[in-house]
Amino acid sequence: MRVLVLGGDGFCGWATSLYLSAKGHDVVILDNLSRRKIDAELATESLTPIRPTPVRLQAWKDVSGRTIQFHNLDVAQDYADLLAMLNRYSPDAVIHFAEQRAAPYSMRTFATRRYTVENNITATHNLLCAIVESGRDIHVVHLGTMGVYGYGTTGDVPVPEGYLKIRITQPNGPDIEREIMHPADPGSVYHMTKTLDALLFYFYNKNDNLRITDLHQGIVWGTRTQETEQDERLINRFDYDGEYGTVLNRFLAQAAIDHPLTVHGVGGQKRAFIHLRDSVRCIELALLHPPKGKQRVQIFNQMTETHRLIDLAHKVSALTGAKIQHVENPRAEEPTNELIVQNDGFLKIGMAPIALDDGLMLEVINVARKYRDRIDPTKIPATSRWRR
Amino acid sequence: MRVLVLGGDGFCGWATSLYLSAKGHDVVILDNLSRRKIDAELATESLTPIRPTPVRLQAWKDVSGRTIQFHNLDVAQDYADLLAMLNRYSPDAVIHFAEQRAAPYSMRTFATRRYTVENNITATHNLLCAIVESGRDIHVVHLGTMGVYGYGTTGDVPVPEGYLKIRITQPNGPDIEREIMHPADPGSVYHMTKTLDALLFYFYNKNDNLRITDLHQGIVWGTRTQETEQDERLINRFDYDGEYGTVLNRFLAQAAIDHPLTVHGVGGQKRAFIHLRDSVRCIELALLHPPKGKQRVQIFNQMTETHRLIDLAHKVSALTGAKIQHVENPRAEEPTNELIVQNDGFLKIGMAPIALDDGLMLEVINVARKYRDRIDPTKIPATSRWRR
Repeated sequence: MRVLVLGGDGFCGWATSLYLSAKGHDVVILDNLSRRKIDAELATESLTPIRPTPVRLQAWKDVSGRTIQFHNLDVAQDYADLLAMLNRYSPDAVIHFAEQRAAPYSMRTFATRRYTVENNITATHNLLCAIVESGRDIHVVHLGTMGVYGYGTTGDVPVPEGYLKIRITQPNGPDIEREIMHPADPGSVYHMTKTLDALLFYFYNKNDNLRITDLHQGIVWGTRTQETEQDERLINRFDYDGEYGTVLNRFLAQAAIDHPLTVHGVGGQKRAFIHLRDSVRCIELALLHPPKGKQRVQIFNQMTETHRLIDLAHKVSALTGAKIQHVENPRAEEPTNELIVQNDGFLKIGMAPIALDDGLMLEVINVARKYRDRIDPTKIPATSRWRR
Repeated sequence: MRVLVLGGDGFCGWATSLYLSAKGHDVVILDNLSRRKIDAELATESLTPIRPTPVRLQAWKDVSGRTIQFHNLDVAQDYADLLAMLNRYSPDAVIHFAEQRAAPYSMRTFATRRYTVENNITATHNLLCAIVESGRDIHVVHLGTMGVYGYGTTGDVPVPEGYLKIRITQPNGPDIEREIMHPADPGSVYHMTKTLDALLFYFYNKNDNLRITDLHQGIVWGTRTQETEQDERLINRFDYDGEYGTVLNRFLAQAAIDHPLTVHGVGGQKRAFIHLRDSVRCIELALLHPPKGKQRVQIFNQMTETHRLIDLAHKVSALTGAKIQHVENPRAEEPTNELIVQNDGFLKIGMAPIALDDGLMLEVINVARKYRDRIDPTKIPATSRWRR
């Protein structure tokens, strides 16, 4: 299968590109390297020493004999180039990672709020528009987030995969049954952009018959995959900082340097998780199971398990002896929530979930220990506040 | 009350600005004159000879003694200037008309699809962001559209004002009752942008406590108000063309020049309508009844009646003898739909609806007849197609 990976130099994008290439797919990466530029802006860097894109790609060629093409292109700015790429490569599918993906960064300043909205919406809309303009039948696989559903009101009903069955009472008549897109309840500007994306997908599917799969992904943890560990130059990004680090990886990095595990509030937030290795496999499963013809947008919950944040902290603490430090929560969110998630879609097409496991957690800790001298402790606190 | 009117030089914006000024409010218009520029782009013009903005404003000063300030400013591009305006004028409210507002134009080309999304979303988000950054408690009044609800599935349930009561069945337990934002079902890229706006409002209300009123407006008809008729230089825009002309005004303009009334398909589409004079009054009612404190986004259906398009054509035909011509529908929409709309919110706070009336229709026809030499018949057909 020929696949364009937008944002293929990022954390999930890089691991996905290598995995798909290893599985025999023909992969082309389009990326404007914005994630690396934001590291420069924030004066931080990946805990792991990621190499420049051309070095990575040469390493992949050296170890696998396979070529991944790369074009430095801004999907949100370079519409004509994007369209030309669709026509040049005629891909079977485009995987869309080309969005600013950190909730804290999206809430950092008014400029980052605006950048996140403009970049993410324009990137997604440009992609949809360019596919229609190309006249090609290209499957779009988009990385969304479980956060589109919200956490305040989901406790008593399992979160379905995108569509919710409801009944509406008529004043005079029987109840009406409907299946609607699950109501959106974003918790940050970043999450909001993913709920906007969902409406773009809805319309372009309805009006232009685009075939779209939206993957509402849980919080990714882990850093290595079978591919990235084949050569030091292939090493994947590992964000430990307060802006881009995701919660479990942050705990593991903190444990590696004997920093207390920073829990926001009481840590009662329950969230969905997925290991990076499951994430890349799910993306191939999505590629291999595209929606057919005029089918509505296909939505999967790309997650394998749920955990309360304080429970994760306790697990990491038990494994490493790290202390737990409760800090003021900079986010505007419920201190505690329930969360039950349906993930039947992926289970049905072959997902074999990797469970949270001491061995895998230790693997992350060992990576962090190996590069511990690269950690700047001043970058650990999450400082972006949701409200002034 | 001090009010900034974004897009105050446009069709609804101009009539609203004059009305509010006449009622004693202190009005400042921000407009980038994009609507006039699009006329130039499409090589068409308002049926009525609208004058340059400074001429209009001078005329208003001459007849009313009142000053309306005007700044040529692009809300989507000039964020710093927008923020400076909020700080300079410290308005009680901002009325947000600054969006590309024609469904056919939004579907005209891939460039107009992209312009509509980028302009509308960035304009709305810039406004919300700038209000939070200003730290001021400013009420946002936004002009939305009845089209956010969609027309395919609303027949059997009255369309509520923004929020829908639903019940969700639990596998093991009693039904759960919720009130959710009405599911969005946009019928064009333009309508899609208004459904995106709704999510921006939802988030900025929830996270930043912004006070927002979203007016889901029906199709506006009429062209004159008590203010615009006071001086020829105050004349309001009247779009008769296939891109920007709205359906009833188009029928009336067609009748004025003995052109057949162009009905898309069988004309079974039922839509909500409101006369321009009701529209401007509703906007003042919304200003005078802002949401309080942490209240959720306040949503009103700004419409007074519903009509099937073929019935409107018959009414105009009966009034004028005009022929009816069924043409192929360039839109992707149901040929026939039912529509029942709740508008209790405005009725409760004082809306006194103007019903469709031969006298008011004749008034529009007379305006069109007066300027009939300005009509270019080649601009009448609606040529923008929803699908290729």
